[in-house]
Parts: sequence; C-alpha cells; structure tokens
Amino acid sequence: MIPRYSRPEMAAIWSPETRFRIWFEIEAHATSALAELGVVPREAAEAIWERGSKAVFDVDRIDEIERVTKHDVIAFLTHLAEHVGPEARFVHQGMTSSDVLDTCLNVQLVRAADILLADLDGLLAALKRRAFEHKMTPTIGRSHGIHAEPVTFGLKLAQAYAEFDRAKQRLLFARREVATCAISGAVGTFANIDPRVEEYVAEKMGLAPEPVSTQVIPRDRHAMFFATLGVIASSVERLAIEIRHLQRTEVLEAEEFFSEGQKGSSAMPHKRNPVLTENLTGLARMVRAYAMPAMENVALWHERDISHSSVERMIGPDATVTLDFALARLTGVVDKLLVYPENMRKNLDRLGGLIHSQRVLLALTQKGVSREDSYAWVQRNAMPVWRGEGDFLTLLKEDPDVSSKLAPAEIEELFDLGYHLKHVDTIFKRVFGVA
Amino acid sequence: MIPRYSRPEMAAIWSPETRFRIWFEIEAHATSALAELGVVPREAAEAIWERGSKAVFDVDRIDEIERVTKHDVIAFLTHLAEHVGPEARFVHQGMTSSDVLDTCLNVQLVRAADILLADLDGLLAALKRRAFEHKMTPTIGRSHGIHAEPVTFGLKLAQAYAEFDRAKQRLLFARREVATCAISGAVGTFANIDPRVEEYVAEKMGLAPEPVSTQVIPRDRHAMFFATLGVIASSVERLAIEIRHLQRTEVLEAEEFFSEGQKGSSAMPHKRNPVLTENLTGLARMVRAYAMPAMENVALWHERDISHSSVERMIGPDATVTLDFALARLTGVVDKLLVYPENMRKNLDRLGGLIHSQRVLLALTQKGVSREDSYAWVQRNAMPVWRGEGDFLTLLKEDPDVSSKLAPAEIEELFDLGYHLKHVDTIFKRVFGVA
Amino acid sequence: MIPRYSRPEMAAIWSPETRFRIWFEIEAHATSALAELGVVPREAAEAIWERGSKAVFDVDRIDEIERVTKHDVIAFLTHLAEHVGPEARFVHQGMTSSDVLDTCLNVQLVRAADILLADLDGLLAALKRRAFEHKMTPTIGRSHGIHAEPVTFGLKLAQAYAEFDRAKQRLLFARREVATCAISGAVGTFANIDPRVEEYVAEKMGLAPEPVSTQVIPRDRHAMFFATLGVIASSVERLAIEIRHLQRTEVLEAEEFFSEGQKGSSAMPHKRNPVLTENLTGLARMVRAYAMPAMENVALWHERDISHSSVERMIGPDATVTLDFALARLTGVVDKLLVYPENMRKNLDRLGGLIHSQRVLLALTQKGVSREDSYAWVQRNAMPVWRGEGDFLTLLKEDPDVSSKLAPAEIEELFDLGYHLKHVDTIFKRVFGVA
Amino acid sequence: MIPRYSRPEMAAIWSPETRFRIWFEIEAHATSALAELGVVPREAAEAIWERGSKAVFDVDRIDEIERVTKHDVIAFLTHLAEHVGPEARFVHQGMTSSDVLDTCLNVQLVRAADILLADLDGLLAALKRRAFEHKMTPTIGRSHGIHAEPVTFGLKLAQAYAEFDRAKQRLLFARREVATCAISGAVGTFANIDPRVEEYVAEKMGLAPEPVSTQVIPRDRHAMFFATLGVIASSVERLAIEIRHLQRTEVLEAEEFFSEGQKGSSAMPHKRNPVLTENLTGLARMVRAYAMPAMENVALWHERDISHSSVERMIGPDATVTLDFALARLTGVVDKLLVYPENMRKNLDRLGGLIHSQRVLLALTQKGVSREDSYAWVQRNAMPVWRGEGDFLTLLKEDPDVSSKLAPAEIEELFDLGYHLKHVDTIFKRVFGVA
Repeated sequence: MIPRYSRPEMAAIWSPETRFRIWFEIEAHATSALAELGVVPREAAEAIWERGSKAVFDVDRIDEIERVTKHDVIAFLTHLAEHVGPEARFVHQGMTSSDVLDTCLNVQLVRAADILLADLDGLLAALKRRAFEHKMTPTIGRSHGIHAEPVTFGLKLAQAYAEFDRAKQRLLFARREVATCAISGAVGTFANIDPRVEEYVAEKMGLAPEPVSTQVIPRDRHAMFFATLGVIASSVERLAIEIRHLQRTEVLEAEEFFSEGQKGSSAMPHKRNPVLTENLTGLARMVRAYAMPAMENVALWHERDISHSSVERMIGPDATVTLDFALARLTGVVDKLLVYPENMRKNLDRLGGLIHSQRVLLALTQKGVSREDSYAWVQRNAMPVWRGEGDFLTLLKEDPDVSSKLAPAEIEELFDLGYHLKHVDTIFKRVFGVA
Repeated sequence: MIPRYSRPEMAAIWSPETRFRIWFEIEAHATSALAELGVVPREAAEAIWERGSKAVFDVDRIDEIERVTKHDVIAFLTHLAEHVGPEARFVHQGMTSSDVLDTCLNVQLVRAADILLADLDGLLAALKRRAFEHKMTPTIGRSHGIHAEPVTFGLKLAQAYAEFDRAKQRLLFARREVATCAISGAVGTFANIDPRVEEYVAEKMGLAPEPVSTQVIPRDRHAMFFATLGVIASSVERLAIEIRHLQRTEVLEAEEFFSEGQKGSSAMPHKRNPVLTENLTGLARMVRAYAMPAMENVALWHERDISHSSVERMIGPDATVTLDFALARLTGVVDKLLVYPENMRKNLDRLGGLIHSQRVLLALTQKGVSREDSYAWVQRNAMPVWRGEGDFLTLLKEDPDVSSKLAPAEIEELFDLGYHLKHVDTIFKRVFGVA
Repeated sequence: MIPRYSRPEMAAIWSPETRFRIWFEIEAHATSALAELGVVPREAAEAIWERGSKAVFDVDRIDEIERVTKHDVIAFLTHLAEHVGPEARFVHQGMTSSDVLDTCLNVQLVRAADILLADLDGLLAALKRRAFEHKMTPTIGRSHGIHAEPVTFGLKLAQAYAEFDRAKQRLLFARREVATCAISGAVGTFANIDPRVEEYVAEKMGLAPEPVSTQVIPRDRHAMFFATLGVIASSVERLAIEIRHLQRTEVLEAEEFFSEGQKGSSAMPHKRNPVLTENLTGLARMVRAYAMPAMENVALWHERDISHSSVERMIGPDATVTLDFALARLTGVVDKLLVYPENMRKNLDRLGGLIHSQRVLLALTQKGVSREDSYAWVQRNAMPVWRGEGDFLTLLKEDPDVSSKLAPAEIEELFDLGYHLKHVDTIFKRVFGVA
Repeated sequence: MIPRYSRPEMAAIWSPETRFRIWFEIEAHATSALAELGVVPREAAEAIWERGSKAVFDVDRIDEIERVTKHDVIAFLTHLAEHVGPEARFVHQGMTSSDVLDTCLNVQLVRAADILLADLDGLLAALKRRAFEHKMTPTIGRSHGIHAEPVTFGLKLAQAYAEFDRAKQRLLFARREVATCAISGAVGTFANIDPRVEEYVAEKMGLAPEPVSTQVIPRDRHAMFFATLGVIASSVERLAIEIRHLQRTEVLEAEEFFSEGQKGSSAMPHKRNPVLTENLTGLARMVRAYAMPAMENVALWHERDISHSSVERMIGPDATVTLDFALARLTGVVDKLLVYPENMRKNLDRLGGLIHSQRVLLALTQKGVSREDSYAWVQRNAMPVWRGEGDFLTLLKEDPDVSSKLAPAEIEELFDLGYHLKHVDTIFKRVFGVA
C-alpha cells in the first residue's frame, strides 16, 4: 500500500485510528453483553461506552506503551484505562487478544469488501453504458492475435461486464467467508466467557459468530478472501491487456483518454501511451501475489501461532487498497475510453476478405463437398491473399472448383458483415437481461 | 500427476479415451440439435450417434493424424469420419475447436469436482466420528507451541470438520463456476451456429450455457476453480501439520497408524514417522502452486490465445488428481489415527499448573485487584514454575498478595479441568447440529 | 511432465530405471570406499560392482516389495540383494536412505542442468545467427506498444541473446548449487560412516561433498535451482511474447514457420497462428510456478522431514522436462522464423514521420529553444499527424516557430533512418564480442 | 513496507528524497560526460553540479508538477530547472526517462544488497559464535519430528551458518545482476546520445554498462534479484521454525530472550512465546511472494511497457526492507537465544535408549546377521520401549537372538554418546575452516 496507488476511503480502514476505534467497539460491546449477563456492573459498561466513545485514542501513546509491553492489545487496554478510569478493569474480561484482533480484522475486511463491491458496481455501470453505446460497432474478432471473424465492440464490453459480474458474485461469497466474530477466549473454549457474549458482539458488529474458533478465527476464510481478490485482479488484467492491444499503433481502435498537458514521453512528444492499463497490469500481478502467503497462513500450529499476523498487516491493506485503486482506475479508463469505429472498420477490411473464409468453407460443405476438400480449396485461395497477393473474393470466383459449386452472387453474399452480428441481441439479453 | 499420488477414478477423467468420448458426445449432441433445427439430416445425426457410440477411438491413430495436421480436434474429426463414414461431414458444422475443447474441459472439471466432493464427504464423516469419540478427551490447547489452556481432542477435530465443511461449500461454488458450455463458433457470435444448439448441448451435458463466450469460455472461471483447490489444499496442510506435531517424540499424543511390516527408517528400526502427513504437507504445496498459473491464464489476448492450453493440460490433471489423493490419504489418516489420551493427560500436567494462570488472573481482578497488579502477581509466581522451580498452586497459596485476596480453597477450585470443558457441547451443537 | 511436452533425453533422467541405476552406483561406490577403509571385504565390494552392473533392476518387483515395506530404499536394497547375493549385507553400511536419495536427486539435477545448458547453447547459436542476418534490418522500436524510434530486428535478437547468455550464467551457478553429495548417516554426524566415504562417492559421481548435511542435503540449494529455472522460463516468455506480437495481423513483421499440411483453425482455413509461442507462454507459467513449492521446501523440521519429497517427485521432472522442451521449441521457432523486412519498413512509415519527433525536439533545444517550448512546438505538430491529418515533415516545415529555427533541409535531415542505426555495431560488439 | 517491520537505513533508500538525489546524480554525471564530449558547454555542466548539489528537492512541489504532466521524470526536470536556471536545458539531452529511472532503481537495489550483505555478515558472526559455544552440547537429532540419533546444538548452528553463507554468495551474484546502468535513449540505440556517456555514468555510479538495453534494463536481472531474496527468506524461515520447535513446551531446549516487562499473553501471564520467530515465518512468506510478480515483470512488450513499474514501486521497498528487518531480527534472536543444555540432555534420554537402535543394528550385521534379521530383532525390542514398556538396553540383553551375537558389554558400549560426536570437528572444519 503506497500513497500513489491508494484511495483515501479504503486506506482509512487500515489506519491505526480506525483499528483502535473498532477494538474499542468490540471491547465495549463485550462489556455490555457481560453487563446484561450480570457479570460486570451495568454502570461500568455504560461508563466505558460513554467515556470511550468520546475518547480520542492517541496512537503515539499506545505505541509508547507497546514498546514496553511488546503487546499491542495490552498497550491499547492500558491506554483505554487512561481514558475510562477504574471501570477499565471490567474490560476484556475472559477475553484473549485474538478475540479483539481477529474480530477487528474481519470487520476491516468486510468494510473493504463493501468498498470493492461498490467499485465493481461502478465498473459494471461504465461497462454497460459503453457496451450499449457500441453494441453494433463492428470490429474484428481475433484469436491468437490473428484476425478471425467480425464481432462488435459492444460484445467485447459485454464479455467484460459478464466477467466482472461474476467477480461481484465471488466477492459476495468471499465477504461472507470473513464476516465472522470470535469472542471465545484463550483457546476457543469459552472457559472464561459466555458464548452469548460472542453472539451479542457479532450481531452488533454485523458479523456471524464463528462456530468453532481455536484462539483465532480459522485462516482458510482469509485465504479464500485473498484468493478471490487475486482472481478479480486477473480479470482487471484481462481487460487492461485488451485495451493495451487496441491502443497499439498498428491497431489503434481505442485509446485511453489523454488529457491536455499530459506528456507521454519526455523524449518523444508524439507518444500517447496506454500507461493506465499498463499500470493496471502491474497492479494485478501484486494483488495476485498476495494470495499465496494468505494460503500459507492457513496451517497455523495447534490452536494458533502468530505467523499470520505480519502477513496480514501487509496484505490486508496492500491487497484491498491496490484492488480498490485498480478497479477505480479501470472504471475511469472504460468510462472515458476513446473509441475509433472507423479504425475498427479499416482493420476489418485489412485481410482482403479472408475473415470470411469459414463461411465459404461451410457453404461448400453444404453443397456436398467433403470437409477436407472444402478446407483445401479455401486454404489455397487464402494463402496468396495472406501474402498480400490478391483479393479473396476475386480469387474464389476464379477458382474452378469453388465456382463449380457456388455462383458469384452466392460467394458475394458470404462476405456480408451483418451475417455475423445477427445474434448480438441474443447475447446482450443473456448478459444484461435486455438487448 | 504421477502414479504414486494418483487414484484411478480421478486419473481416468483425464485419459485420452475419456477426452475423446466427451468430444464425441459434444459433437453428436450438437449434430442432434442441428438435426432438430433442420440444418442437417436427422438420419445423419442418428447414424453419427449410432456408429460413434460403438466406436472405439484409437488414441495412437489420432496422434498419428495430429502429427500431420498439428491440430488435435481436426485429427479427432478425421478419425471420427473413419468410424462414421460420409455422414461425418455434418459433424462440427459452424463450430470451432474451442467449442469442443472448452466444453470438454468443463465436463472434466465438473466430474473431478464431484469426486472431490465425495472425498470431502468421506473426510467429514471420519472427522465427525473421531470428534464424537474424543469429544471429552482432555488435551492441552497450545498457542505459539506453548501450553495455553485445556481443550479436548474432539474440539480439535470439530474445528477440522468445520473447516472442511467450508471447503465443501467453496467447492460447490467453484463447481458451479466451471459448469458451463459454449457452442458459439469462432469468435462467440453464433455466426454459423444457432444459439439453441448451445442450449441443447449444455442441457444434455449437465451444464449451463455460457452467457457470452469469445472463442473460449472465460478463464476467470477456471482461475476461481483452481484457487479454490489451493485453499482446500491449505486446509489439508493444516490438519496434516497438527498431526505431525502430535506425533513428535516429546508430544506423542497421536500417531499415524503403523502397519505390520512397515519400516520407518532403513537405519533406525525404532522409528515411527508421520510420513503420510508429511507427504500431505508437500502435496498441499503443489496444489496451491497450481493456482498461480491458473490466474495468469485469465488475461488471454483479444477473443482468445492458446497460452492457457498447456497450463491446463498440466494443472487440470495435476491439481485434481493430487487433491483427490490427498483428501483420501487424509481421510485414512484420520480414520485410523492412534490417539493416546493418557499422554494427553501427562502433557496437560507438565507445566505444574501454569495453564490455570489466566483463571487466577481473572479471579484476582474480580476481587477488585487492578488488571496490571493481577498480571504482575500471577507472573511472578509463574516464572519460577516455568523454570521448573516449584508448583504453581503451592506458590500461589504462599504468595502474600494473592493469599490476601483468595482463600486456599478458592485457589484450588481455579485448577479444575472441568471448568474449561463446560461449553464443548455448545460448540459441538454449532458445528454438527447435535452434541 | 506430460508426453506432449517432453523430450526423451530429459525424460529418461527421471525414469525409475535411471534412478535405480544411480542408486546402485552410489551404494556400490560407497561400498568400494568402505572396502578401501578396510570396513568391508574388498571381494564383497567387487562382487557387488560386478553383479550389480550386469543386473537389470526390475521396477515392478521393487514396487511390489515397497508395497510391503512402505519404504523405497529398503525395497531397492532387498531387490539388489536378489541380484547380488549374500554380499549385499555389506551394502548401505552406516548409511541412511537420504544419503542415497539426496545424492541421486542431485545427480539427476546436474544431468538435467547439463541438458538445459546444451539447450541454451543451441538457442544462443540460433539467436546469434539470426541476429547477424538481420543486424541492419530496420524496424520500429516500440514502447508501450506505441511506435517510438527505429531499431533493427538484429538488435531485438541481440537483446534476446544477451538475456539467454545471462540465463546460462545463472544456470551454471544453479548447477553448482546442487552438485553436492551427502553420505553422512542418519543425522549427518558420520556416526556410523567415515567422512572419507562421502568424499570418495562425491568425486566418483562428479559432485562436491556437502559441508554439513543433517539427514538431508539442505533444500535452499534446490530452491535456488528451481527459482533459477523460473527466471529462465520468464525469459522464454519474453521472447515468445515478442514473436506473438510481431505475428499479429496488423503487425506481421515475423511469423512462426508454417509447414505444409498444418491447419491453423478447424473453422477458418486462412489462419496462421503463433501457436508455438503461445504454447511457450503457458509453459513458462508452469516452470515459474514450480519455484514457489521449491522455496516452501526449505524449512524442513529439525534434521529433516519428508514433506519435500512429494514436491520434488513432481517438480523435479516437471520443471526440467518442461523447460527443456520450451527451450528446444523456442530454438526451433527462432531458427525457422519467417521475417518480413518489407512489412517492417511499411510499419516504420506508418506514423507519417512521427517517430522522428524526438530528433526535432533535440534539434530545437540545440538551437537554444527551451525544452518546454520545444516540446510544445513538436507536440502541436505531432497531434494532427497522430489523428491521420497530414504529414509530420510537411507540417513542421510550415510551422512558423519551428521554421524560424530550422531550415527545411535541416528538418529533412532529421528524418534520416541511418542516424538511428549508427551504434548497432557498438552494441553487437558488446553482446557478441564482434560486430 | 510498513514502519513496524522497517529499519531506517534501508527505508531511507526508498524515500523520494533519495530517489531524487540519485536522479540528479545520474543527470549531472551524464551532462558532465556530454561536456567532455563537447556536446554541451562545460560551464553549464559545472553550474548544474554546483547548484543541484546544493539544492533541496521539494517532494511536494515535484508531486504538484506531476499532477499536471502525469510524468514523474519531466516533473523532476522541471523542478530541477527551478533550482539550476537556464542551464537546465542541457540536462537530459538525448536521454529518455527510463535511462534515469532504471539506473536509479539499480543503484537503489545495489545499496539495498549492500545492507543485506552486512546483515548476513552480522547473522553469520552470531551463528558462528553460538555454534562454537555449543559445539559439543549434545542434543537429539530428529527426523520427521521423531528422535533419531544424537547431534550437538553447535552442529545445528553450523548448518545454519553454512546455509547463510550460501545466501551470501547468492546475494553477491544477485547484486552483480542488477549493478548495471543504461543511458541509451528512447529505444536503446544511442541515437541521440553517445555510448561513452553511459560508460561514464556507469563508472561514476559504481555500475557496469548494460550491454544492450531496449528502452529499459532487462527485467530478468531484477527477477533473479527478487527470486534470490525469496530463497534467502526461505532460509530465514527454516531457522525460525527450528527455534519455534525448540521452544515448544514439551521440548524447551531453547527460548527466545524474554525481556523484563514483556507480556506473552494478555490472558495467560505464564506464557513465553516464540513470537519473534513466528513473526519471521510470516515475513518470509511475504518476501517469497514478491518473487512471483518480479518474474512476471520480465516479459515486457517489445522495447518496453511500463507494467513493471507499479510492481517495483511496491516490491522494491517491500522485499528489501522486510528482508533487512528479518535478518536483523533473526540475528538478535540467535545472539540472545537462551539455550538449555540440561533440557537437551533430558530429551536425549527420553526414549529409553531407542536412539541407539541403529548402532545395534549395525553391530549385528557386522557379526554376520543378515540385514533383514538384524532389523527384525532390533525392531521387536524397540516397539515395547516405544510404548513405554521397558528399557531398550535391558530388553536387548535379555533377547536370546541378540545376546547370542553380542555380549552385554558389547551392547552397553553401543549406547555411548561420544560415538556420535567424533566427527563434529571434521564438520566444523569444513564449515568454518577451523574446529
């Protein structure tokens, strides 16, 4: 997480201030629950809420205490007592640090997921708008980087829409994975704390109780969460690479918006580079990489070890902040993408009609020619065109075998662009519900 | 995928025979759909089904043809024509290779998922049986590898049960991700094939139609699938490492079953090593590693490139076969695990009562001592015990501060084991529905 | 490791036959050393060599024994005794299985490295030949996929040559890392075996003695080895992606060789796809992925655990076989690459002279114009050309500011291609030693 | 890179201030070289050095300019001009941003490597000191977590020493990989800049000229660098895990130093947890993870794309800062490690003499008993001891088969600890040069 690739709302989730505030809420709710159970005085619980809510937790002071105790939660509790007074002794009763830390982490991840879900909604809206705008803008479909057959630019965006809609479903699933709360004590047995405290705190914090914790909330949940972010980042990469390809000098079917005053190159004033999508490609690599240590974190020793903690201090912010930034950046790119339908058209025509080769092949087989012969006839006319020697339509009309089966008008009809676009509506209906 | 770590049912999914059989089914169903639409003669479709169903596809022959054509699907279709005769020309009409390849891959992954789901059911059953068997077998809970407070061995297994139950939910989600079918032609526009063919084939193959494919089924689906296997493998590692720890010479609370005739070491006849769970630790590393190339596969160029293919030829079998083997092996380990309750008891007593330190701390705070003072009093009595100098209970009774607040009988009661196990039922009910 | 992506010589290194043969050599050399030290009878050592050298080890029989003993080395020794007779009892004296297994693995990795080094030599030779062939073939250099300034195709290949020459240095370093031998007994103390046995075997097997082993040769060595393969694979990916880009329909500056009879697409007869380099892209992902479990293998427990073993059974063959195949395939691609200088020239001219913008910028600053003004003047003439509105040279000549500083002839000279190629020789000398 | 896991010296390498200072040095050296070549006025070069050396670069101001230009190097040059005045127009002549950025990155990585090398020296010194201190401290060697045969604690540390000495060699190699400089212009052709400028700057900055750059220094160099850090981190993990094992309650052969006032657990005052080494385990996962995006960075498009940049902005600091912190922390742990020889001795005796089983086995074979029989005789006496039923020495003496071959005194001698330690000196000599 570096400022250059951070947005404030997501970054704020990971600030010490937010963390201490969530810790306080967890501790205070737990104390309230204990008060309801008659374990601590109701007045103490109320005093804790009242004074703690007004308190401004001093990060430097807590750090100072931690340097002595070498324990972050104890340092916080000590500082909390400085605000709350003697009632502070009722805080954290029967709890263990992990109850606070793990529940807090999950609150943070849930909040992060909510921002990412909103990001995805924004991206989906941009994709949908542009998809409908270019629903019938013809462009060449490419496999292996080689011209294949016509598609529309809207279809490309519809595919991206469907992919990010899946991303959203995955993120909702992953959010559920980490939306749990544990207040179960030193080894998860509730020895010193009633399970009802956990249920109470869970409900207040918008979480579900963790059915069985050890000292910690099990890390397979978090592994799934970060793996899901890695998959979403890979989809970001896909769309970014698509745009980078489209902006290539030789292709130039679309471009990232290029603002006044922007300089593409310190050396070459003519350059307009797809730097945002290149950047997204790199960011995707990072978010993906974080999935691996998250998975290694699962196998903690016995009821817990703390090896996961340093990993999460890093990837918690790094993965969510980076993906948030990437999704927002991608949304901006899609939203303002410069699209050049005339260049798409020019590229479509570049291969001298070869992109219609399959239709000719099919037409021949429908006339009773064997698949092998059809393929051979089409290929022998395609090869010279590929080398820039001649026009496919003309050659086909002149080929004795082909023309023995297909009349000139029949061949011409096989070169109709509309033929390829007749099911665009069907696909849009599948993806967007409407066409 | 190597024979040593393969089970036949899963391996069979990835054999060439299975693959060609699925290809045939996809092609034949597509031809039936085309016959229903009146595009190809009904008799041709029937002949294809009849002759193809009886055909034994000759893997060597197909390889031979592929060496010429350098194209696997064309090689198969050529061979199919050798079985089916002239009607073969109606096969693959308007389709592209990827229609066959991608739909086939998803059929294979769905079948693999079904085996893995059955594996998980087997593992869950074993875990449940052993969990109830040891529901009240006390053992020490450890954090950081250090004795913390008592748990039961059943609780450890209940945690594993809950974790693998989550694994099952994740796998069901991942199975849905890859259960799609695409018969949409060269760039996914249905230019030469009616979308109803896709719907027909999808239904027959137990899949859903892919809403928008390009030439390929989008690879974010597969990335999610393999990432999920990686997370499940990490849970395998967790339980494996738990057992390895329990079998350590100094701990010896449980052991992998050791059969007659088995030799633990060629050099040291006394050795009984946790080799199965060590092996599982290694296998988990592999399954996890496969998630990374699966994620890199997402960003194919434009409507497709074929870079994903070599990756999938490897990780398709490797990840599913290895995880299947690992889950089966883990089930066997759990099922036959030798558990030593008496050693658990011995270890529980090893720390001279220190594991009850938290209860003493809490009792002191409830008597009105500040948290800081309580901590200091307990710690100063704990340290000598830790060094092997004295018994915690005795020292506490002799401590002037502690004894000024707690009577000897009160202190003794704080050393009761049952206190820690009173909520085992609650947890079992949460996990298994019954206790 | 799957047959499709395997070459026989490398695959043979990993066959059971090879493994048992190496095991035999290690055991027999160790027995010879023991005979020299007077620990075992010289005749026994000789008999072992003689009978073992002639023996054909029966993989199925060894597997059968292993199913009982569950220990591979004991199974082998039992089978060896079937060949060697009673003298077999002098084999493996004071050794532990890992002495054999680890030394064998390192022999295999060294042999694999030697094949990979030969592969690299082949690739370097092909790159060098093609680099000199196209040393002065001008082509556009691209940054961000956007035309920048001219380079030559030979320079691109010279860069690849330099990169794979570094790969070779790295592999030599990595080979040294794994070229060690351990015959140090159960926990590496030489308790039951003289260190001179290790030295003897090491020398015979072309290895260095491991200075301190535990039971195993430390796995940081292997981690470094596989990480190095991952880096080399990434260089394969780089060159593969370069070629894929050059073969794009809109670029078409080079193509993979396309043999007679090859079919690019079952549906589109005109297609000529860069399938080899796409395949290499996928293979690179796999080799890279194997680095991760190799690194996780380092942290074995205490003097050893066996979690590394399953990983190595998989990545040992998978990584080396796949990289061998990839390097050989890449060599073939480079060797037979179809290069289209005329298309390179066409693409060079595509931007209406914009690629010379930097020279104009520099010329203006040399005439005393500030960098900011120069940039602005050049950019305002570049933008229309970029949009396809006019020719850069003409516009510059017509620009009042520019023409106030540069005469028409001066501007024209700035468009000279030779200007960019004047240091090609310098670079070739740096890379190849000659130009 | 988060403050909690950062040390100031390494962090400072990655500050904007350092970066801008290095940029200035590169630009100023390049201008000096141009002055020597007569391309720019000598006075201008001198003025640039003089004014720039005294200038304090204002990070906020540069950021402000970058927000307009969206280009970091141009923003810096603009700011530099604010300090230097009109001579600034002679700066950056014929260069491209990457010349500055890439050379700067390599300067930073070289400086980071130097700190890491010093860290390794510190760690090696601590390991050596403690290794000699405990050279002859007997402790049990464990394979699979099961007692095997005796070693010494010094041997464990000698192994770690040898491993980190290899780490040092690797890092020296990796440092060489990234110690290159490129001043070669927009596409690496030196079109607008003399190669002698590159040579001049390289020498001044302590680097070698990059033989052939494109626009960028090739990223296989950096991939190798970060992969090497990943391997080193894995060695950190290995030693950390060893210590965590030794500190387990049941083992307790060593402990991290525990300072006064430190609290192991907020809930359990007796706890002394190996939190430093657990932390190191997590940090190792992170450093390892960064190798993956570094490898993905290699395959930039054509002469460069900028996808590597965001990755490097993150992993540049993150990997080096984290590894620096980890090495320093590990050095502290080793330096102050509390070692408990008496507990080692107790653990050695725990198995009732079973750790001598191999010696008995060997003695029997040397008496002419077949390996299989010897193994069976030993194992049948070992199994009851393993179950806690009896003492190995006694049982062996009572076994009719064993005692028919070995006299009681002979058996007793096989239980001598010194036997196992006789080659410790040999190993120390190999590792440290002296014993």
